[in-house]
Order: sequence, then C-alpha cells, then structure tokens
Amino acid sequence: MYTRDELNTLFQKFLPKDAIVAAVEELSAFECDALTAYKQLPQIVLFPETVEQVQKILRFCYQNKIHVVSRGAGTSLSGGALPLAEGVLLSLAKFNRILKIDADNRTASVQAGVRNLAISQAASKYGLYYAPDPSSQIACTIGGNVAENAGGVHCLKYGLTTHNILELKVVTVEGEFLTIGSQGLDSSGYDLLALLTGSEGLLAVILEVTVKLLPKPDAVQVILAGFDSVVQAGSAVAAIIAANVTPSGLEMMDNYAIRAAEEFAHAGYPVDAAAILICELDGASDEVAEESNTVLEILKSYNILELQISKTEEQCLLIWSGRKGAFPAIGRIAPDYYCMDGTIPRKYLAPVLEYISNLSAEYNLKVANVFHAGDGNLHPLILYDANIPGELEKTEKFGAKILEMCVKVGGSITGEHGVGVEKINQMCLQFNTLELEQFHRIKHAFDSLGLLNPGKAIPTLHRCAELGAMHVHNGELPFPDIERF
Amino acid sequence: MYTRDELNTLFQKFLPKDAIVAAVEELSAFECDALTAYKQLPQIVLFPETVEQVQKILRFCYQNKIHVVSRGAGTSLSGGALPLAEGVLLSLAKFNRILKIDADNRTASVQAGVRNLAISQAASKYGLYYAPDPSSQIACTIGGNVAENAGGVHCLKYGLTTHNILELKVVTVEGEFLTIGSQGLDSSGYDLLALLTGSEGLLAVILEVTVKLLPKPDAVQVILAGFDSVVQAGSAVAAIIAANVTPSGLEMMDNYAIRAAEEFAHAGYPVDAAAILICELDGASDEVAEESNTVLEILKSYNILELQISKTEEQCLLIWSGRKGAFPAIGRIAPDYYCMDGTIPRKYLAPVLEYISNLSAEYNLKVANVFHAGDGNLHPLILYDANIPGELEKTEKFGAKILEMCVKVGGSITGEHGVGVEKINQMCLQFNTLELEQFHRIKHAFDSLGLLNPGKAIPTLHRCAELGAMHVHNGELPFPDIERF
Repeated sequence: MYTRDELNTLFQKFLPKDAIVAAVEELSAFECDALTAYKQLPQIVLFPETVEQVQKILRFCYQNKIHVVSRGAGTSLSGGALPLAEGVLLSLAKFNRILKIDADNRTASVQAGVRNLAISQAASKYGLYYAPDPSSQIACTIGGNVAENAGGVHCLKYGLTTHNILELKVVTVEGEFLTIGSQGLDSSGYDLLALLTGSEGLLAVILEVTVKLLPKPDAVQVILAGFDSVVQAGSAVAAIIAANVTPSGLEMMDNYAIRAAEEFAHAGYPVDAAAILICELDGASDEVAEESNTVLEILKSYNILELQISKTEEQCLLIWSGRKGAFPAIGRIAPDYYCMDGTIPRKYLAPVLEYISNLSAEYNLKVANVFHAGDGNLHPLILYDANIPGELEKTEKFGAKILEMCVKVGGSITGEHGVGVEKINQMCLQFNTLELEQFHRIKHAFDSLGLLNPGKAIPTLHRCAELGAMHVHNGELPFPDIERF
Repeated sequence: MYTRDELNTLFQKFLPKDAIVAAVEELSAFECDALTAYKQLPQIVLFPETVEQVQKILRFCYQNKIHVVSRGAGTSLSGGALPLAEGVLLSLAKFNRILKIDADNRTASVQAGVRNLAISQAASKYGLYYAPDPSSQIACTIGGNVAENAGGVHCLKYGLTTHNILELKVVTVEGEFLTIGSQGLDSSGYDLLALLTGSEGLLAVILEVTVKLLPKPDAVQVILAGFDSVVQAGSAVAAIIAANVTPSGLEMMDNYAIRAAEEFAHAGYPVDAAAILICELDGASDEVAEESNTVLEILKSYNILELQISKTEEQCLLIWSGRKGAFPAIGRIAPDYYCMDGTIPRKYLAPVLEYISNLSAEYNLKVANVFHAGDGNLHPLILYDANIPGELEKTEKFGAKILEMCVKVGGSITGEHGVGVEKINQMCLQFNTLELEQFHRIKHAFDSLGLLNPGKAIPTLHRCAELGAMHVHNGELPFPDIERF
C-alpha cells in the first residue's frame, strides 16, 4: 500500500497538479455523500478531464491493486460514493460537457458529470426533456443516475434511468475503453447497457451517456386531495391505477410529512389531513382533461377533506413545492433523519404503513412517510438525533425491519437509491447464496481483482453467513389475509 | 461423447419414456427452426415437464460436458434453436401452463412454453393484454420471446420484451434454480433480468416468466396512406414522430411487398403505390381522435395516392391483415426468402433503402421491404431459389452487405430477431475485440464450460480474426451529407 504522499507523487507523473487533491483539509469535503451517517476521509481525490487520463489512472490502480471509488455529485442516499481510507476517489466533476443534442433522433449525448436538470434545460429549446427526475436533480449527475438506476416522480409513467438511456462509454478497471449499447432501437449481444445501469460503480467507470429525450407535454395538471386516513389514500391510489389512468406522478405524504412540508414551503397543504395524494397528469390537452375527470370521479367516492386542482403552471409548481421540499423540511424539524427506500406491491400499502407506525411507537422514533405511491416505492424518513448515544444504531435497526418487511411482501430493499453501504446487509435477506454467487461471477467478469467500489452493493457470502440465515425469499407471508400474487 | 442410443439409455434413468425422442424419423421434425436455410438433425430431443427434471438433465449434461440447445416453438428467424449434431435439444413445450394472472398488479406468471398470444387471450377477461406482438405470436412462446428479446408492431409505443417483463425463474447449466428480477418496481443487485433477456439461450434455461400486462386501449384507429415514392413515405414517418405523436404501430411496405400482400390477403392495398404507411393510434377516444387529426394534417402535405381511415374494428383488422400476412405472402411468390432484420437511425431510411435497391440490381435478386418504420427496424426480404446452385450463398452475401450498412450508419445488425447462427459473422463487424471479450467474460460467469447453445450469438475472437479486420464501429460514414448524430 502506498501512503497519501506517495500516491500524490506517483499520480503527478501523469496528471496535472490541479487534478489531484491530497491535502487533508481539502479532502474533508469528500468524506461522505448524502448518507452522512457514514464518513471516511479519502486517501486522495483525482479530477481527470480526459478519457486518456481516466485510462491511465485505472491502469495504474489495476497494476498496483489500488481500490477506486467513482463519484459524481456525491448525492447518493445509500453511501454509494463513500470513500475508502486506502484508495482513490475518482471524481467525474470535470466531465461536465453536453456533447450533442440530436433533436431529430431525440437523444442527448453528455459526459457523466453533467447534472440531470442541465440536460432538460439544454434540450428545452427543442421542446424536449429528459424524464427521470430524482429529487436531487438540480445537483445529481447523469453518471451517478446511471450507476444507481435513479428514479423520481415521473418514473411511474416514464420509467427508471435504465428505460431512458441508449448508450454508455465506459472505461474498465483494466483501462479499456468500451462502447456499451447503441444509438439505435436495440443492440445485439448481451444487454451490458442494462447490466451496468444500477451496478453502483462496481463494474466500470462511466464517462459518457446517451439519453433518450421526450417531447414536453402540451398540458400538465396537478390534483391534490386530502384524506382522513392513510388507508383511504392508499385505496384511492389503487383505484386510479385500476381505472387505466397513468399519472405522470402519484405521490403520497402522511400527516407528519404534510406538516413539516407546509411549514417549510407554504404550499397550502391541508395540515389536518391524515394523508394527501398529489396526482399529476400530462399529455395532450384533451387527454389530460379526460384523465382529470376520471381521477376526480374516483376521488368523489372518498371522504375528501381538501381538493385542489391546478389551473396554471404556477399552481402546479406550488403544489409540487411542498413535496419536493419534503426532505429538507424534515431536516429542519429533526437533528437527523434516515431516508429509507423500499418497494412493495401496491396492495400492501396500508398494512405496511401500519407496521411502520407500530415500529415507530416501539422504537420511540418519529417517522414521516413521503413516497411514490403509484409504483409502491416507500420513503419512510426516520427522525433521530445522532448526538444521543445509541440512537443511530436504533434507527438503523428500525430501518432494517422496514426493509425486511418489504422483502417479505414480495418487494425489494431499494426502489431507486441503490444498496451502497447502507443496505448491504439486507441484500443477504433479498437473495440466496446461489443468487449472490451469480452476482459475484458478474463482478469477476468485469473486475476480477475487486478493485472498483469494494464493500458496496453486493455483500460477500461470508458477510451473509456471519449475519446468520436471514434469507426469507419466498418465506412465510406476514399478511396471510392479503393474497400473495 | 455418447452415441444417440447411449444418451437415450442414460436419460431414461431419470426421465419418463415419453419425455425422450431419439428415433431418427421423429427427430427430423426438429432439424431446423424458422430459418430453414440451416438444418441439422438433433442427436436427441428431451421434453421435461418439471423443474426438477430440467435440473437433472442439466446437471447430467454439465457433468458429462454435453451441449444443450433450448427450444420453444422453434419460430426463431435467426437459427437460435438450430440443433447440434452432438448434444441435447431441450424442448420447453411441456412448460405450457399459465400459472397466475394478477389483475390488481397487472402481471401474469406463465411457464416458458406458453404462447405469446395465449397470454393476451387469458388476460382479456380482465381488460388486459401483453403488449409485445411478434408476427409469429400465434405460435411463438414467451420463453423464446425473452431469449430473443422479441419485438413486434406495438414495440414502437410499448417497448421490446425486455421492457415488459418483471421476473424470470431459470435453471443454470449447473442445475441451479435462480429467481431473477422481482415482482416489484425495481430489483436490487445487478440487472440480471435484462442481461438474460436477449441472451439467446447462452446463459441459462428459462422456465417461468412474469410479464407486465397493460389495459386494453379504449379506442384504436388505423390509417393507411399510399405514396408515390419510398423517400416521401420515409419523410412522413419522420414528420409524424416529430409531431409528438407516438403511434402504437407505424409500418411501411414497398411496392413489391404491397403487391404480394394484396394478392394474398385482399386487404384493399393500393397496388400502384411505391410505398404504403400503416399508422395505428390507440388510447383514450379523445386522444386517438386528436392524434388522428395530427397525422392526417401531416399526410395532406404529401402527394397521397390513397388514404384509408378505419371506422370499425373490422376495418382495422382488414388493413392489418395484409401487413401481418406479408411474410407468408412473399413465401407464395418466391421459392425461398431470406428475412433480414437490421436497425438504422430513422433519418437514414431513404438512402439505406436506395442502397438496398441498388444491391438488388447488382445481385439480380428481388427484395421486398416490410418494416417497422417508426423505430427504424428494417425487414428486407430477399427472394431467392435454394435449388439454384450458389443462390443461397449470393443471398447471404447480399444480406451481409445490408447489415454492414446498418452498422455503418450507427444502427445494429438485429432489431428483434436475434443473432443466432445467421448473423454471427456480422457480430465481428458490430463489436471490437475488447467488447467481444467482455461478452465472453459474461458467458463464462454463467456457463464456464460453454455448453449452452454453442456457436450462436457471440462469435469467438478466433472466428472474427479469420474473417479479417471487419470492424467498422465508428468508422467512415457512408453518407457524409447526412449528419451523423
């Protein structure tokens, strides 16, 4: 192993000085990503700006068996970009150019460090936009989005990152430059494009992404409804989907989240409602009008405490402002919060929310629920205070229980935030030994020495064995009265 | 290597007699799939009907290094299910049960041997259907669809097979049973679901598929327009897409295909048109009416020789009958035909069609063009007579030239039919050594002995080297006057 100073000297041989950060006082800016519960000072941070520099860095690391963690904007909520005490933190911040917008083919080719929102902004003059919209879209980069298969409010209608990209240019840990996917409809050979998407930096370093662009819809309408119970709101979600409406967003917030968001954003939310639904419809004007009528018809059959229907773009934005500010809003009322990310089949919404509510009482930790109801993607935010000894550990146990329940009802331990370091133990729960072994074989096919982002996303079999026989895949059903599909 | 008789005896130890076909006269029924230019009598055909039987077969083959080719309905157009002289042909014909239709979650779980159309038929009573619709949907199986990542007319709007499935149950060559993907929104870990989709039987044997179902649209309208030139029809395709209309089908046929189809199906096609466009719109009634107006407005600006607008479901079906019968129609007027399947960026439609037309004259072989114009997926049908010595070889050379051109303009050598044995040489053209090597590493991660479907889909590096330096990826542009995206 090289010391920090040795690495600094070695990298200076083929990188400009301003591409290297090795001073401890500067390194602390990179000690965590958005999962701040985990912190680690990196050994060194590199900022290459050409493909050749990345290839040289990776070849050097490969030859010297040095670990490498790639980093976009560091907005990962699962610790995907947490640095290592020994190894390189490879920042793609200088890969920040939009290379081409092809309006005819509705694609944009951009470097990995381009921000998600910047793509839509650049495409706007052609009447186009990039659909996946994580809450962090002002800051997060497209390379990170691909690495985590990021989602967002619009993914209910338009799919996750994996459904919205066409081609990647990557460098393997051995320094090889590969083009993955194609600019056309389909690509021959194994689907490495999908394989790399969501691989959390474990398989290759992404340098360039060609994304699909969509035409901006002619009309957008947002409906907000306040309910007197969470169960009723969940039932309305199922009814809307069953009516063949595909909203461009269908979000739910519980009372605690409503209050926090309202205090922060003054969006005009009904603070006495047990839950609100926010339903966005987009498309041609006639289509939106028709779908809007269908949704309002459905809502009539519930005891609605409040109903808001946007008439202008400003009103749309106002309704969304509360939801989009929900995370920082919670941040204001609690010293720390832990944002969970699990998926469940929609029909388990009500019992799982009740289970979380019971756990909240048991652990004496408040929970705010903000989630993509339409696709069953939960985001319970557990409120805690890291300065109270033991409270972080208690929070993590609580969170683990929620994820275990997601798996039990046939869901998944991550909807869109990735596994990272945060949920690596729950992977032992989601997958059996054979399945994990297959993941390790895939890793080996790209990175036989295990140098890229070690300790994230895929647990070792040893780790799972130590945790005990946690695997519950196809196990007993927690709610036998609700039929398992 | 075992003889046929030895294999028969060995398999009888753990399979019922009626699960084994080893008599030469019965084996001839399996000597090819829908790519009849390639024929090979299988050594033995097995028809397991339980997961355990498949596991036993594969474990036995693995231990004895016996090759295995999986087969659904044998409708592959690229020879994906071509048997081997030495090895097992594993038929999934007895895996033909629909296990569950979950109308609430809009999913169907079916065994691999269930026919594509049977899924939609079973889901019909819930108002649901399965979107991908290959032309062979009456016969082809969902397992084969997954193996080839099959497409169809509706894929322009609803995506390929890979976008419409959630979970697979597979057995590896080592006999391990794996669950791939999940019933939820997203799955953690590497995306093995997408990796297996389109892997052409090289990675695992698929036994069960959970597909997504869609609500049947309220309204469907089909518009047929006849053009006096292929270039004009291609231009109209671009204009329709540019107008933000996403048809549920946008098909083009040239004069030769129109004439053949009309003679066969009597669909009322304009036999003097140089090309026809068939545009299907689906969705809510208002939406379809609005999109229909937009399409008709666009068509007005062209010299349209014929315009048909469906008023009833029968008229829709009549218009489609010609297109859906186009392949058998060509089969009636030529002793043999060779169906190509390449993709190109839409803007190259006109020059690539002209190039094909020139090649047709050069090789003195007629070509009928039938294709998914909306997504740039070409299906030139080269007409030939296998009984004329050398004509098949000439046809294959012609076909190879078309695929080379697809790659040159930034497209792909397969849109939806797979590589199989047919296009294995063109893979050397599409991918460079590093990219092919990565494919081989993936293969190794699933099937280290190379027992599953050898000789298909991914060429050896040796084969590509023997063919010479064919790789043209990012090479010179054939139409420098058309800007490369």
